Amino acid sequence: MINNFMTIADEKFSSILSKTSSFFNSADFYEKSDLVLLGIPMDYTASNIPGSRFAPKRIRELSYTLENYSPFFGDSIDEKFYDMGDLVMPWGNTDKSIKFINETAEKILCDGKKIIGIGGDHLVSYPVIKQYALKYEDLVVLQFDAHTDLREEWNNEKYSHATVLRLVYDIINKGNLFQFGIRSGSKEEFDFAKKHCHIYTNEVYEPLKRVIGSLAGKHVYLTIDIDVLDPAFAPGTGYIEAGGISSKELFDAVSLLLSEVQVVGADVVEVCPPTDNSDRTSAIAAKLIREIIIGMHANKKIKNF
Amino acid sequence: MINNFMTIADEKFSSILSKTSSFFNSADFYEKSDLVLLGIPMDYTASNIPGSRFAPKRIRELSYTLENYSPFFGDSIDEKFYDMGDLVMPWGNTDKSIKFINETAEKILCDGKKIIGIGGDHLVSYPVIKQYALKYEDLVVLQFDAHTDLREEWNNEKYSHATVLRLVYDIINKGNLFQFGIRSGSKEEFDFAKKHCHIYTNEVYEPLKRVIGSLAGKHVYLTIDIDVLDPAFAPGTGYIEAGGISSKELFDAVSLLLSEVQVVGADVVEVCPPTDNSDRTSAIAAKLIREIIIGMHANKKIKNF
Amino acid sequence: MINNFMTIADEKFSSILSKTSSFFNSADFYEKSDLVLLGIPMDYTASNIPGSRFAPKRIRELSYTLENYSPFFGDSIDEKFYDMGDLVMPWGNTDKSIKFINETAEKILCDGKKIIGIGGDHLVSYPVIKQYALKYEDLVVLQFDAHTDLREEWNNEKYSHATVLRLVYDIINKGNLFQFGIRSGSKEEFDFAKKHCHIYTNEVYEPLKRVIGSLAGKHVYLTIDIDVLDPAFAPGTGYIEAGGISSKELFDAVSLLLSEVQVVGADVVEVCPPTDNSDRTSAIAAKLIREIIIGMHANKKIKNF
Amino acid sequence: MINNFMTIADEKFSSILSKTSSFFNSADFYEKSDLVLLGIPMDYTASNIPGSRFAPKRIRELSYTLENYSPFFGDSIDEKFYDMGDLVMPWGNTDKSIKFINETAEKILCDGKKIIGIGGDHLVSYPVIKQYALKYEDLVVLQFDAHTDLREEWNNEKYSHATVLRLVYDIINKGNLFQFGIRSGSKEEFDFAKKHCHIYTNEVYEPLKRVIGSLAGKHVYLTIDIDVLDPAFAPGTGYIEAGGISSKELFDAVSLLLSEVQVVGADVVEVCPPTDNSDRTSAIAAKLIREIIIGMHANKKIKNF
Amino acid sequence: MINNFMTIADEKFSSILSKTSSFFNSADFYEKSDLVLLGIPMDYTASNIPGSRFAPKRIRELSYTLENYSPFFGDSIDEKFYDMGDLVMPWGNTDKSIKFINETAEKILCDGKKIIGIGGDHLVSYPVIKQYALKYEDLVVLQFDAHTDLREEWNNEKYSHATVLRLVYDIINKGNLFQFGIRSGSKEEFDFAKKHCHIYTNEVYEPLKRVIGSLAGKHVYLTIDIDVLDPAFAPGTGYIEAGGISSKELFDAVSLLLSEVQVVGADVVEVCPPTDNSDRTSAIAAKLIREIIIGMHANKKIKNF
Amino acid sequence: MINNFMTIADEKFSSILSKTSSFFNSADFYEKSDLVLLGIPMDYTASNIPGSRFAPKRIRELSYTLENYSPFFGDSIDEKFYDMGDLVMPWGNTDKSIKFINETAEKILCDGKKIIGIGGDHLVSYPVIKQYALKYEDLVVLQFDAHTDLREEWNNEKYSHATVLRLVYDIINKGNLFQFGIRSGSKEEFDFAKKHCHIYTNEVYEPLKRVIGSLAGKHVYLTIDIDVLDPAFAPGTGYIEAGGISSKELFDAVSLLLSEVQVVGADVVEVCPPTDNSDRTSAIAAKLIREIIIGMHANKKIKNF
Repeated sequence: MINNFMTIADEKFSSILSKTSSFFNSADFYEKSDLVLLGIPMDYTASNIPGSRFAPKRIRELSYTLENYSPFFGDSIDEKFYDMGDLVMPWGNTDKSIKFINETAEKILCDGKKIIGIGGDHLVSYPVIKQYALKYEDLVVLQFDAHTDLREEWNNEKYSHATVLRLVYDIINKGNLFQFGIRSGSKEEFDFAKKHCHIYTNEVYEPLKRVIGSLAGKHVYLTIDIDVLDPAFAPGTGYIEAGGISSKELFDAVSLLLSEVQVVGADVVEVCPPTDNSDRTSAIAAKLIREIIIGMHANKKIKNF
Repeated sequence: MINNFMTIADEKFSSILSKTSSFFNSADFYEKSDLVLLGIPMDYTASNIPGSRFAPKRIRELSYTLENYSPFFGDSIDEKFYDMGDLVMPWGNTDKSIKFINETAEKILCDGKKIIGIGGDHLVSYPVIKQYALKYEDLVVLQFDAHTDLREEWNNEKYSHATVLRLVYDIINKGNLFQFGIRSGSKEEFDFAKKHCHIYTNEVYEPLKRVIGSLAGKHVYLTIDIDVLDPAFAPGTGYIEAGGISSKELFDAVSLLLSEVQVVGADVVEVCPPTDNSDRTSAIAAKLIREIIIGMHANKKIKNF
Repeated sequence: MINNFMTIADEKFSSILSKTSSFFNSADFYEKSDLVLLGIPMDYTASNIPGSRFAPKRIRELSYTLENYSPFFGDSIDEKFYDMGDLVMPWGNTDKSIKFINETAEKILCDGKKIIGIGGDHLVSYPVIKQYALKYEDLVVLQFDAHTDLREEWNNEKYSHATVLRLVYDIINKGNLFQFGIRSGSKEEFDFAKKHCHIYTNEVYEPLKRVIGSLAGKHVYLTIDIDVLDPAFAPGTGYIEAGGISSKELFDAVSLLLSEVQVVGADVVEVCPPTDNSDRTSAIAAKLIREIIIGMHANKKIKNF
Repeated sequence: MINNFMTIADEKFSSILSKTSSFFNSADFYEKSDLVLLGIPMDYTASNIPGSRFAPKRIRELSYTLENYSPFFGDSIDEKFYDMGDLVMPWGNTDKSIKFINETAEKILCDGKKIIGIGGDHLVSYPVIKQYALKYEDLVVLQFDAHTDLREEWNNEKYSHATVLRLVYDIINKGNLFQFGIRSGSKEEFDFAKKHCHIYTNEVYEPLKRVIGSLAGKHVYLTIDIDVLDPAFAPGTGYIEAGGISSKELFDAVSLLLSEVQVVGADVVEVCPPTDNSDRTSAIAAKLIREIIIGMHANKKIKNF
Repeated sequence: MINNFMTIADEKFSSILSKTSSFFNSADFYEKSDLVLLGIPMDYTASNIPGSRFAPKRIRELSYTLENYSPFFGDSIDEKFYDMGDLVMPWGNTDKSIKFINETAEKILCDGKKIIGIGGDHLVSYPVIKQYALKYEDLVVLQFDAHTDLREEWNNEKYSHATVLRLVYDIINKGNLFQFGIRSGSKEEFDFAKKHCHIYTNEVYEPLKRVIGSLAGKHVYLTIDIDVLDPAFAPGTGYIEAGGISSKELFDAVSLLLSEVQVVGADVVEVCPPTDNSDRTSAIAAKLIREIIIGMHANKKIKNF
Repeated sequence: MINNFMTIADEKFSSILSKTSSFFNSADFYEKSDLVLLGIPMDYTASNIPGSRFAPKRIRELSYTLENYSPFFGDSIDEKFYDMGDLVMPWGNTDKSIKFINETAEKILCDGKKIIGIGGDHLVSYPVIKQYALKYEDLVVLQFDAHTDLREEWNNEKYSHATVLRLVYDIINKGNLFQFGIRSGSKEEFDFAKKHCHIYTNEVYEPLKRVIGSLAGKHVYLTIDIDVLDPAFAPGTGYIEAGGISSKELFDAVSLLLSEVQVVGADVVEVCPPTDNSDRTSAIAAKLIREIIIGMHANKKIKNF
């Protein structure tokens, strides 16, 4: 019943981070890379199926079944990032968890690094994006998701996977929230989205292609709720919502985005390994992370962001 | 070993119906709605994998993971229907089961209501459609299915999931059976279908779009065998048949149909929960039922059918 | 959707038997052995979880993971029996199924052979035992089971897994039904059992040891409902009932019985492979059948029954 | 994504209770019975595998596979209790959850009724026992468990499944905590238990038999952590700990206790359905609840507690 | 622990072949057909998930859920092939296994027959193609696959699923290796492929359509690694690689190929049944084999190859 | 498709060891402990279900769900051992694998350390025991197992999980092989065992208690094939054999042995995680390893071996 964590060496994080394994080809030290991978295994606001807490660990495992080479970018992942391990979660204490995430994200951004987060449920994006919004005033948030996540409260709670993009909406400039692939939400959420956000239903690639020109030069944060994929492609998630996009469309969209736009932060959330015994949801997340890392690196190098 | 049913209040059905839970947002009383949802958990003619008996219950459970709002129809499901619960099945007695379904369907139609059935195996459609055919002389039946189901007998039995559309063919007007998405059957069945039915192989949406004009003004019954979907989208079914359509195509087709045509009855059959531990087959069925209910309601309201 | 059976050569059974694989070490021909193994994949009276139809096939598969040698009997199974394959079931037609089983059992007994049946649900024992009761007037039936199965009717049906021992009770001499390991039933069933049967609750080995002397010289039929085992040992069954015996106790009891008593027929029923993904329920059934075959063979040889 | 609860009629509880199905043979109204069944689906302090939130619902489902008759007590469950449904949990807010449970337990005890709780993780026992301790000054708590659960804090949190019996220890009289079947804990916990509690390792039935005389006349609360069973018997739980007792031993112990001692409250916790696809952990919990209800009822009637 | 094989009658193969069941509608004797189906259950060079050894058996089982009729080819499979059963593998001895496969393939080709192989991991294709290359000097190999499989060695071993197409490359004429659907490999492999092979990434049907004209008149061997499909369609495989094609695209490509080109041999490899509990990967493989058999037969008949 | 190993620092092993995670509470360096844990993920001689290659990794994972304290020994595991990680296996090359294991075991023993091995299939014990036999001339081997494993060859191969104890028999002194819990084998194996070994069938604890006096002062190697347990307790193994012992009996036996006898080496083999989705087989193995480490440490300290 003991969590026997092997705490990492880095002093400033050691009290709240644990690390038992690494994403494949991680650099050895925090200092070696500008891109850091951070597991955030919080899943207790999940109102349907919990289990996204296991995502960071399982995604790391599945990373070892991948090649290190991306045919799209023509480059390899090798040591282009540092895997910091996972935040140690105070189970069942949401407020304290958000505080931990906030503090950690702040420190990393202070060090001039960029974060690639692995959820956990979607709520984990909020404290990370909050720090990004403080750093980049013009921050644009791109959401790939089945659900709007724009509720004002959920089950009388303000902090929830169902309210997270509304929380985000409130801390970034108006007009800077773009939603793609949305196919589920309440009437109120859709009304809000149509009025205040850029919402594109059912599809991701085509609408992204249309608007990508307008994102040039902006600082973009990409949050991918894995349920943007059809449950056929990603059965391991908290809420399965039929009618989603294919894995091909998702990779096409992510590749396009990383090639054309300055992505300064990203996360992959809502992967719930226990409900997918084929592990293909974790595998697709691992591949997304490989592409994001290689893409953000190329991006940085070539475009001199 | 006891089936401890909570029998429903409605006198005339109480001897043969049981109800332990409701599809989400059901109206409280039979009298309150023209649309009734009826579970028909018969699966003993299944020749491959039994288990569709569990579909009505599991689909109801999964309904609670959905939003009540349909972005396509711009309306919510709330109390637009009444969930009657399930027929109590005399396990292993097919003849008596068909008799029960016939009687129940007759009573509901007599009350001026419309039925949305949940199978069970495909055979359950036959006694329901029989009552519809008695009520609407010009009844047109639309079948979304991987298989033709046009055999004259199966394993020497007349009543079977493999013979059901042949039984239906015999009780509706010639030329009124339309088959979409078909990709499996015997040579004899394909020959029969090409000669006597409107058969469209592999695809659903495109051929439906082509013929939908000709269905205007007719009374249409829609029977959806969930295996019309590729097993990737609906692995939980009795016979998995590769090469099917995507969930997007199915929702597009159902939306189109409900928008343009007077659907007077519908069913979703062959969902077999035990072989899908991700529950996405039941989830897609629940979403189909939500769309059918909202669509039939809109349909009624707007078009004054 | 086609059942492509490889029908067996034996003319008199060919219309109703199919065979796609054999229990390991089966003799090649019906004529070669006095012991015949018969699969009876009927499961449509199952009121909870269907799937025992898959038991004969899966048990055959698992037989190949066993040694052919029984350390208890000091003998091997080799060709001591003939595997006839499975009865072809008219799915969903219980009456016709019982008729088929009756006819088949009659023919086999007529040929002077003994039957080891593999269910299917427990109802399959009835028509087999009926033929045995016609042949041996003094037939004693031993039931290893979690449930009494003594109902007069179930869901208004006379033929059911829940009524099967009551049906058996009615066709054998009074006082000839022995029940072991029983831990579930209605009040009426327990009252009936206490009055008319020899019922031993919760345990099998100890009570069997006490009564085995009284069975000497009698013709005994052994019916094993696999749920006599605790679900820990046999999770793959239609109704899981906690508090059962261990596999060790079951093998001890079966070994004792076969060593001391003239077993003229036996069956193993209610194995439901789909709910046990470890296959240990099928594996234990395969081992039981190996022991029964070797034991009945030794029995015959040594005691000259 | 909507939780569409059917709220129960009872005014005083309606804001915090939901009910979509009932344990089999529940009475119809709260007023009809002195025993109430209460689902408490809190699982967010789970530090290993979450999912006990699904236990109340799944245990209710499995209850329908049981007979209503207990051979041990010679009585049936029929309407001897009322199933109140589940507390609506504010996901991820442990403090508020404990407040809800406290309030609900208080109201029920005020009405002169007894509570049979279904967890959720073990923490749910604390607020219920707290109310019992307020009502019965001499309350004795019996714990059947693999783990001591006596930590002072867990992951820096005071409220946890790992601290729950320490919390309980602090609110009942010294010497009134009895622990059975314990086989895991830290050195500090074992030291504490040996000094301050009655701890019996590995076994339940034999030590219970030895001490049961001393419990006569006392008000006893029984809390069963399902992991007291070996994982073979109960694989569906948060922490699997090898070396546990059998289901037979557990039923023997529970039957003995209910026959000899005045049990005024009980709970079954840490059933985690998602990790047991055979559902036997939920089934054994359902059977335990049946026995507890019948036993507490008999207890009340016969002994005039 | 004994493998009790039913060895086949054919003398020359009997020492190394076993057969416990047949693909549906197999001819009775080796002599009856020019097309032979051969199971090659070698999986010990698998570096990730082993289990493709179970593919031949499971694919045969699933074949019984199919119709024998192909709507595309308008013909039935009946007895157009002979199922030889499986090679008996010397577990863990790769060199000896390759020798066995070589010898068996040689004998079959000598008899003027064509082989349809079922893996096993991809390495099984090498010894079969080797014999084909000896027979047809101009042999063209078409590979449908997610991975290039062009490594020179893997884990210091020359014979591996990761080196198999490089081994093949070395024994056929330069320019005769065509790769479709590739989406994973090392930088070195992609460089090699671009220089020495015809490589088409991500897609199969469209590029095949473009090059099919150039294949006219050539002897073509088709090797299908099932992971060319997206894991949504084929989760049961050793390495799951997101971003693959749909089952529709695969069937379209296979149908096109068999209609236009002289396919003289084929195999389906890397089906790993244990990681797909829906069995849809095995089912799609069975359907592919049905189409390949009917297509090769039609091909032979019509085009007089 | 790349195995991206984090190779360990120790020079002399670095070419053949990999380490991605540690058993909980491992010491940091090889030099710090006399006990070393070594994963040997070889499983290609498995003739039934492969997958024991995953055991070392999964057992490490499950170790984190345990307490570090052993109530039996009254001591904690902390840093009493060093986890070296896993041998890098040349998949499918048995000869080379055995060579690697031999070399590694030799080096470790040379350094004056003791090995606790984690299989892999049972064959991995042979090369380890071989080195022990070279070091301790009087080596006694204790085998807890369902099977005799005494075949001379298996499938014509000399090196196999089915021949391993025969190989061991040939390299230790006559009369030094003790077998407990055996319940399966060929007639020849049982005959051999009765003649040349100390074989105790079905049980472990009682016979061990009887002979333990005779082992005093000897150097004992303990090899535990997890299938000595009944499949109820350990479903995740290559060959499931009903009728085994309980986890309690196994822990009692191991505790007894470690308390009374000088155990100089041990292994736990044949854990096959993929066939146990409850992970209880891996969990019991982790607990066995914890007890063995604490017991061997205590043993060393107290008895001054």
